[in-house]
Amino acid sequence: MISGELTVPPPGQSVVKIPQAFIEELQSTIEEDRVNFDKDDRDVHGRPWYSYHKIDAVPDVVVYPVSTEEVVAVVNLCRKYKVPIVPYGAATSLEGHTLTMKGGVSIDMTLMKKIKELHVEDMDVVVEAGMGWVELNEYLKPEGLFFPLDPGPGATVGGMCACRCSGSLAVRYGTMRDNVLSLKAVMANGDVVKTASRARKSAAGYDLTRLMIGSEGTLGIITEVTLRLQKIPEASTVAMCTFPSIKDAADVAIGIMHSGIQASRVELLDEVMIKGVNLANGKSYKEAPTLMFELIGTEAYAREQTEIVKKIAEQHNASDFIYSETPEEKVQLWKIRKEAFWAAQTLNSVAEIMTTDVCVPLSKLAQCISQAKIELDASPLTACIISHAGDGNFHTLIMFNPDDKAELLEAKRLSDMMVHTALDLGGTCTGEHGVGIGKIQYMEKELGPEALKVMGSIKSTLDPDNIMNPGKIIPPQFCY
Amino acid sequence: MISGELTVPPPGQSVVKIPQAFIEELQSTIEEDRVNFDKDDRDVHGRPWYSYHKIDAVPDVVVYPVSTEEVVAVVNLCRKYKVPIVPYGAATSLEGHTLTMKGGVSIDMTLMKKIKELHVEDMDVVVEAGMGWVELNEYLKPEGLFFPLDPGPGATVGGMCACRCSGSLAVRYGTMRDNVLSLKAVMANGDVVKTASRARKSAAGYDLTRLMIGSEGTLGIITEVTLRLQKIPEASTVAMCTFPSIKDAADVAIGIMHSGIQASRVELLDEVMIKGVNLANGKSYKEAPTLMFELIGTEAYAREQTEIVKKIAEQHNASDFIYSETPEEKVQLWKIRKEAFWAAQTLNSVAEIMTTDVCVPLSKLAQCISQAKIELDASPLTACIISHAGDGNFHTLIMFNPDDKAELLEAKRLSDMMVHTALDLGGTCTGEHGVGIGKIQYMEKELGPEALKVMGSIKSTLDPDNIMNPGKIIPPQFCY
Repeated sequence: MISGELTVPPPGQSVVKIPQAFIEELQSTIEEDRVNFDKDDRDVHGRPWYSYHKIDAVPDVVVYPVSTEEVVAVVNLCRKYKVPIVPYGAATSLEGHTLTMKGGVSIDMTLMKKIKELHVEDMDVVVEAGMGWVELNEYLKPEGLFFPLDPGPGATVGGMCACRCSGSLAVRYGTMRDNVLSLKAVMANGDVVKTASRARKSAAGYDLTRLMIGSEGTLGIITEVTLRLQKIPEASTVAMCTFPSIKDAADVAIGIMHSGIQASRVELLDEVMIKGVNLANGKSYKEAPTLMFELIGTEAYAREQTEIVKKIAEQHNASDFIYSETPEEKVQLWKIRKEAFWAAQTLNSVAEIMTTDVCVPLSKLAQCISQAKIELDASPLTACIISHAGDGNFHTLIMFNPDDKAELLEAKRLSDMMVHTALDLGGTCTGEHGVGIGKIQYMEKELGPEALKVMGSIKSTLDPDNIMNPGKIIPPQFCY
Repeated sequence: MISGELTVPPPGQSVVKIPQAFIEELQSTIEEDRVNFDKDDRDVHGRPWYSYHKIDAVPDVVVYPVSTEEVVAVVNLCRKYKVPIVPYGAATSLEGHTLTMKGGVSIDMTLMKKIKELHVEDMDVVVEAGMGWVELNEYLKPEGLFFPLDPGPGATVGGMCACRCSGSLAVRYGTMRDNVLSLKAVMANGDVVKTASRARKSAAGYDLTRLMIGSEGTLGIITEVTLRLQKIPEASTVAMCTFPSIKDAADVAIGIMHSGIQASRVELLDEVMIKGVNLANGKSYKEAPTLMFELIGTEAYAREQTEIVKKIAEQHNASDFIYSETPEEKVQLWKIRKEAFWAAQTLNSVAEIMTTDVCVPLSKLAQCISQAKIELDASPLTACIISHAGDGNFHTLIMFNPDDKAELLEAKRLSDMMVHTALDLGGTCTGEHGVGIGKIQYMEKELGPEALKVMGSIKSTLDPDNIMNPGKIIPPQFCY
């Protein structure tokens, strides 16, 4: 993938045509086989398969650095020639974060995946940004430790930081915001910033770690991350049960949060989603609103929590309890949840999936889903719902034929309706997928012009030439 | 305190003399009895009794706003006339955060202490910045909820945000960074920024909430905060035990973190501190390195955790276990820890206390304390150590006579030695007390010039006239 004949990009490929002198300096800076003008590779980097944003935003060149120093060199060149630079991890993000909207450099971080330091006693690890979380957890397993975030399987740690991702375990362990001790980033001026020490807490100055987490490559390129780790729990219970209504299921999520126990997962799937699960897995689960839980701790405590949750669920009309006892059964049951995205595709095999990502205060979750479902049920498109219910975050997977303009417009209408419903209920347009180009239009309604002016000022002062992933997060009228 | 005859400040009181026109506009904007030129009140605001930074940094005027709109009006006036403005809560901070280094306005937020919204189902509350955490917890108690941070008893929520504070419960619940959903702040340009929605998580743009938390009034004035709440635990165990060495005690802290249980408190007191505790409370605890724990959860789980911790402690030579059984005994035992600062004063009743606040990776805690203790033992000054051991954070309370220059210099030398030891071990100069003026000199060693340049750029762009708490956090060479 990273080799191939070097070809200068055809004219018109980049919005800002990159100068020949830039190309020459780049080629003399980075080894030949890690500077790629090959069309196929550029296409891969400009059209992330995972995202439903199918627009032409192909980079002029793909660069594969192997060190922070190389990232510095590339950033310095980009600044010198005013060439946009967009970091690229596994491109599992959904909102078009890696699209090179104005051409330029796609800087692919996946060759930087070393584990630089493991501190078992401190329960932290220092990794390069291109390290995948799945691979990291394989590495950590013999130490009895793990990194407790679980987005799409391919995701890299750098991308997870950039998009402030989370996943089903966030209800217990928090998001990327809560699990990074420190990071190293190359800023637009070429400076390498180390945001914090390895201490578990600090009150030393502005929180640059959190500023970079969620900045989606618009402020700098993350090259190294120090992650907090967790102990692999001694025991766990995995269970599922069904409810007559979404409201009942959401009330159980509230009940669990109020019980004082810390479930590690509280996931809600609607009846359409369960239908997909059944189709994809040859199962016959009852097609009704369903909660899936995971409860962890010592053996006795996992058992005690299971009893508490069962009681709460029964108070809200739960039935059809299924408990996974053996490790294999547990893996099997969570696999169903993990692969729900693919299972949804069995509901309409020719379709693409547009995924929404709203998050509302927990007390509004049932109302938000119920309001949405009225519109979804009335739509000609198929859509199913899957929710990190403990956090009030849910995804609607809307299936549409991308070649049918009416279907595309209808999918967009439904997605837009979901966002406005969530914002009107005091929520956010994105719980964990980020802004990219997909949610930029909602930022002003959600945060107000004052907050966006602050973001725009920060962006403009730290990246005065707007070379760092231009066109993402902040509506253009608030920058520069 | 807030009434009193209005007197124009004597000449020379402020470094930047405030113009008469500013005073007149201020008086026509804010009600007379909430604009105070009275010397006593200005002295109170310029010489925080709690801090060991005894320098003359008295404001020209103290203003007591009652609404965000009034804060906006005062900030707009300060900007118009280039008058510094320094937010003031309970002034329980230690590093001189509230000192008006260049004179100007001390904006006292303590009249703004309304509870604006309580969302029991969502487990969050919206409060004005002047609300005290102790008072808030009294209010929340009937709902079975609490806000899980416990700094000095007087501290206000706004001040806690500004200083990114934590306390003994941080090992379980995190710091202020982790417990704020959103906040409202008046920026230097007069804009009111709402940083986020009430959703429990969001990936919508730069993390302005976290940018403001720890910014110590240098970017804006926090007027309203949305806090995450926790369930009051059903049961708890409080225990203490002693060890032959600090290393043994610190190893237990590591062992607890690795056990996978979540102790809610793991506090370490050295033998000198226990001596103070004995003197102050008429007790006869063994004067040896001591750990105090709190374990929470269901009754069964609190018991199970106690057994686990006891086993870990015994593996590291623990003895003299004391368990508190009744609620009264528990309160009594924690009172000893909470009042340690005052107990330390019994060791030298004429002294002031200089408090250090370093935090290191957990594996370095024993080494850091042991290295420090060699110097402390050799010093003519008395000093004791108290540590949030689960987080690797510890305070040395150094007793000195402030009128004795040699003692003051020796206290400063010890404090400086502690910081350098911690930084050399990969730690931070401040785990929870913040930078203020006290730690500014260590920022470059800890974070490097590159990170400080980023902080300076943010400060300069958001507060171009440097009116917001000037002279704090960022060394001047990195701003403007």
